[in-house]
Parts: sequence; structure tokens; C-alpha cells
Amino acid sequence: MSKKTPSQPFALGIDLGGTKIAVGLCRSGHLEKKVLVPTPVAHGAKAMIAAMVKASREAMAGCDPAEIAGVGVGAAGQIDARTGTVIYAPNLGWEKVPLGEELQRALGLRVRVVNDVRAATIAELHYGAGKGCSTFVNIFVGTGIGSGWVVNGALLEGITNSAGEIGHTCLDPQGPLCGCGHRGCFEAFSSGRGVENYVKTELVQGRVTKIRELVEDDPRKVTGRIIGTAAREKDELALEALRRAGTYIGLVVANLHTMVNPDTVILGGGLMALKEFILPSVEVAIRKHILPVAWRDGLFTMARCENDAGVLGGAALFSA
Amino acid sequence: MSKKTPSQPFALGIDLGGTKIAVGLCRSGHLEKKVLVPTPVAHGAKAMIAAMVKASREAMAGCDPAEIAGVGVGAAGQIDARTGTVIYAPNLGWEKVPLGEELQRALGLRVRVVNDVRAATIAELHYGAGKGCSTFVNIFVGTGIGSGWVVNGALLEGITNSAGEIGHTCLDPQGPLCGCGHRGCFEAFSSGRGVENYVKTELVQGRVTKIRELVEDDPRKVTGRIIGTAAREKDELALEALRRAGTYIGLVVANLHTMVNPDTVILGGGLMALKEFILPSVEVAIRKHILPVAWRDGLFTMARCENDAGVLGGAALFSA
Repeated sequence: MSKKTPSQPFALGIDLGGTKIAVGLCRSGHLEKKVLVPTPVAHGAKAMIAAMVKASREAMAGCDPAEIAGVGVGAAGQIDARTGTVIYAPNLGWEKVPLGEELQRALGLRVRVVNDVRAATIAELHYGAGKGCSTFVNIFVGTGIGSGWVVNGALLEGITNSAGEIGHTCLDPQGPLCGCGHRGCFEAFSSGRGVENYVKTELVQGRVTKIRELVEDDPRKVTGRIIGTAAREKDELALEALRRAGTYIGLVVANLHTMVNPDTVILGGGLMALKEFILPSVEVAIRKHILPVAWRDGLFTMARCENDAGVLGGAALFSA
Repeated sequence: MSKKTPSQPFALGIDLGGTKIAVGLCRSGHLEKKVLVPTPVAHGAKAMIAAMVKASREAMAGCDPAEIAGVGVGAAGQIDARTGTVIYAPNLGWEKVPLGEELQRALGLRVRVVNDVRAATIAELHYGAGKGCSTFVNIFVGTGIGSGWVVNGALLEGITNSAGEIGHTCLDPQGPLCGCGHRGCFEAFSSGRGVENYVKTELVQGRVTKIRELVEDDPRKVTGRIIGTAAREKDELALEALRRAGTYIGLVVANLHTMVNPDTVILGGGLMALKEFILPSVEVAIRKHILPVAWRDGLFTMARCENDAGVLGGAALFSA
């Protein structure tokens, strides 16, 4: 990672998501200032990049550009980290957008782009649950599931820069259909979308559940938020769907420990807002599947940087 | 890894197995001399260490000890690599045997001990199918299944030195019982023992197969060799058992690529002597489970050091 010089104590971190752009002026892992704007997805790549530039200028206002080591972007999509080009980002509607180049030209600063899960993993490494760890896997359970791997202190990129796609490992060849076209992917069981699909299927099959009123008998209206509400009201279907997600998360965590023997596995992402309903079955599954001698406290832990992970991780590419 | 000095061109590599001890005098990955003796398992640890010392002296005969950088041992069991103590080696009947210390005292040379799969992985890294790779997983399919991981050029040890136990990752919670007490471990499907158990169960259930005559109707007599013989005679049960092993190997290889995106996955070990019956289903399963964009030639490859891997890898600890 590029290192700051004593005269460049700041770095900008940008979290580019499908709904919002967050820009943070960071100094040694602290957010000095944060600017949050909606992502103008409907207006195309140019408008989105212009919004990033504007928010960046606002975040840097009053700061000498010479004091800024660089701009690190975490973007939801497939990234060519070498050139800073976004190869494919379905949430943004982007294909082959030279984001790094354009930001560099507009801001006159060095720019690096990585995918959002890797940015979050770098944040956990430097400032969060991975601090002091030699080797860990950061599993991000959101709408889909991704992961970032730090091995012997370094982020794993992979021979074709695609390390970490843990959401598409097959856990059951006869399992539910995944968005990727395969069956039984981890993501099809345990992601936000996987949990929603499970609930939708049960609704269609006539299951008695509070969720039915909450969605006015329309399965298409099922969301993670509604499942959370139902779970808090002890609805059995909601609890079962979240337990099932946790069971498969636990299986994956156990297998990672058996294969990689990391310091820890970090769990984060939107679905973990419902962790009170998920974690008990994660632990049961880990204990069931891990080699008995391998059980120890701290096998898994919750992500700590969460909301600011993308921004902090982006900035850490220049100033950790 | 300890490096040789120009005046120490040689290293000894020892492969300590449950049936034989192989000692090799090695020079830059070449076996200059090899001594092979049976492992006197019935006579206890002292006798086995004495046999290793005797074979080592024979291998070094005529060589100036000052020219030998050290002795690297690969042993089938759980090893404390820091002290060279064999913590637990069921095949040898060993528990807490200070092998490194005893060899050091007897031979007057520096000694390092690692587990046999890691020794084989080091051999593949320096002289075999992993040469030139940054990141690979070496899966050893023998009686059981183990693996060695090289990540960014370095052997992965793990936080409690137990990285690589891939044979005990759970592939199916409802799967066959494994020796470890869990269900559906990779090893229960795809190891030599897993294949034998599958054939034994089918025999007990009355399946018509050539294997029945070959074992004189006694399922206990089923061996990998017999299954190989039957497969060559196109026996459907033998072919099915090996295809099934390959299908699960392919699933694991696909999942490794999805998660780790390594240069390659190396397949070795005794069962791979039957690769003509196993590899076709490995490839079918990889294609089925891997992300479509991730398919490329060279995703998996056969181990190259095979019979001498333990000896070459042991020696490479001192002189790669």
C-alpha cells in the first residue's frame, strides 16, 4: 500500500454504492469530515463521477491538496485494481468505466480503486476486528455475500484478481437456485436475498405467518426489514429463515477454520443487523462441523467499521 | 526457510511414513542418493529413530558433514514445527516424541520437522507443479485427505499450526460418517478409505460386481488396489466409486478457485494412481460449480514430485 509522507497526513476515502456516495477526509483511521450524497444512478456514469468529484471537493474544503496523499475508492463491482477501471458494476449500470483515470484528472490527486468488500476488509485490518491479526477472512453478508481475505498480513487478490467470491461456493448441489444460475451457493442460503427468497417461497406455499399481513399477502413485498420486524415479534417463519442463514454461515466459518486456520473470521454486512437471530445458529453450526480440537473462543467476531468501512478502507490505501 | 551457504551444497530429506522410511541426500532439488528401509513400527519410537539415524548415515556416507546444511523431515502426523516434536502420529503410534531433538543429537546436524503433506507441498513449490506459482493448494488424496497451502509464495501454517486439514471440511451434513466422527467430510467421500467404504457398503447390500469374487465375498478385503483392478475391467461399481470421489474433488477444487483464486490446485497422493478413472468427473464437477467466467485451462494439475516429494521437500527446508 502506498504510504503517506509526514507532509501528507490526510487521505480521501470514497464509498461508491448503488444508493449513496460517501466521501471521508481521513487521518490515521479517523474520519475528520464526511460528505454523503445520493448516487444519481439514473443519470449515468458521468453524472455519478461528477457527484463524486463535487463531494470530494466539499470534503477537502479548507485543506491544502498537497497534504492529501491520495484518493481511495471502494466500489461495488468488479474492478481492475491496477488501472482503476470498473469492469462491471450491475448496481451502478457500469461497464468498463475508467473511474480511477477520470477522478485523477478531475481532482489532480493519485487515485486507487478496489472493490467495496476489499475496502471494508482493509478497514477491518487497520482499524477494526482484524487489527493485529495475521490471517483472517472478512465475510460480508448483505444483499449478496462477498469476502475479503488477509493472509500473512496482506490482502489476497488472486491470480485473476477475483479472490473472495465466497458467496458462490457451492454448499449443496441440490440447494436453492442462486442468481448466478447455479444451485446451492452460500449466497442462495444466507444472504439477505436468500433469506427473502426462502420466506417468499414459504408464503407462496401457504405458510401461516405474521409476515403475510405485513406484506399484505404480496410475497414480492418481502424485505429484510419486514423479516426483522416479524422476528422481533417471534414469528416462527422469520426466525426459521434467519436460523437457516446462520446455520450455513456457521458451516462456512467452520470449513474456513479447518482449511485455513485463520486468527478469526469476521462477519459484517446489512443482514448482520439481525445478528441476535442469526448468531446462535452460527455458533451451533461451527461447533457441529469444526474439528473438536479446533474449537476456541474468538473463532468468529463481528465487523467493527461497518458504516464507515468503505471510506476508511479506501483512505487506508494511501494512509493507514 | 534456512538457506544453504555455498560451502553447504547438500541437505538430507527424510520421509517418515507408517510403512517405510526414505532418506535422500539432495542437492538443489536433485536426489544424489536414496536409502529406503522399512519402518519398524512394532518396535517403538526409539527403534524407528535409530533406523532413521542409520539410514541417514548411509545416505551421507563419503560426504563431509560440513557440506550438509541440515536435515528436513516430513512425518505423517501432527507436528510442532517450532520444536520438531511429533505431537501425535497415530500411524507410528507416537505421542509427544521429540524427534527433532533426538536426530540433532545423534547426527550433529540442524534438524527441522514438518508434516508430510507440507513437506510434499514445499517440494511441489520448489521443484514440481507449484514452481513459479504465487498461490496454490496442494491436495493430497491418500488413505485420508490433507492439503498444503502456499499463499503469496509462503507456506500457510495457521494460527494454531493446523492450516490445511481440508479432508475434514464438511461437504454434506447428511453425508457418510467420517473417521473423525462427523458426517460428510471431504475425506469420507473422496479418500482411498472413503472409496473403499463406499464399495464395502454396496457389497454388503448385495450389489452385483466383479469385486465380490476378487475379495472372495469378504467386504473387509476390499482395497484400493482391488478397486483399481476392477475399474480396469470396467466393473460398474468400481467406476462409480471412483467417479463419485472425483465429483467431490471437483466440487472442492471449484470452491477453492471461487474463494481463493489460486494459480492452480495440485492433486496428488496414492488414490491418484487411478486418475484415469477419477479426473474426468473432477473436470465435469469443476465446470458445473465454478463461476462461468472463472473457467480456464490449468485450474488443476497433477503433482509432479510424488514418490520423492517428502524427501525433496524435507531437504528443501535447508537447501531449496
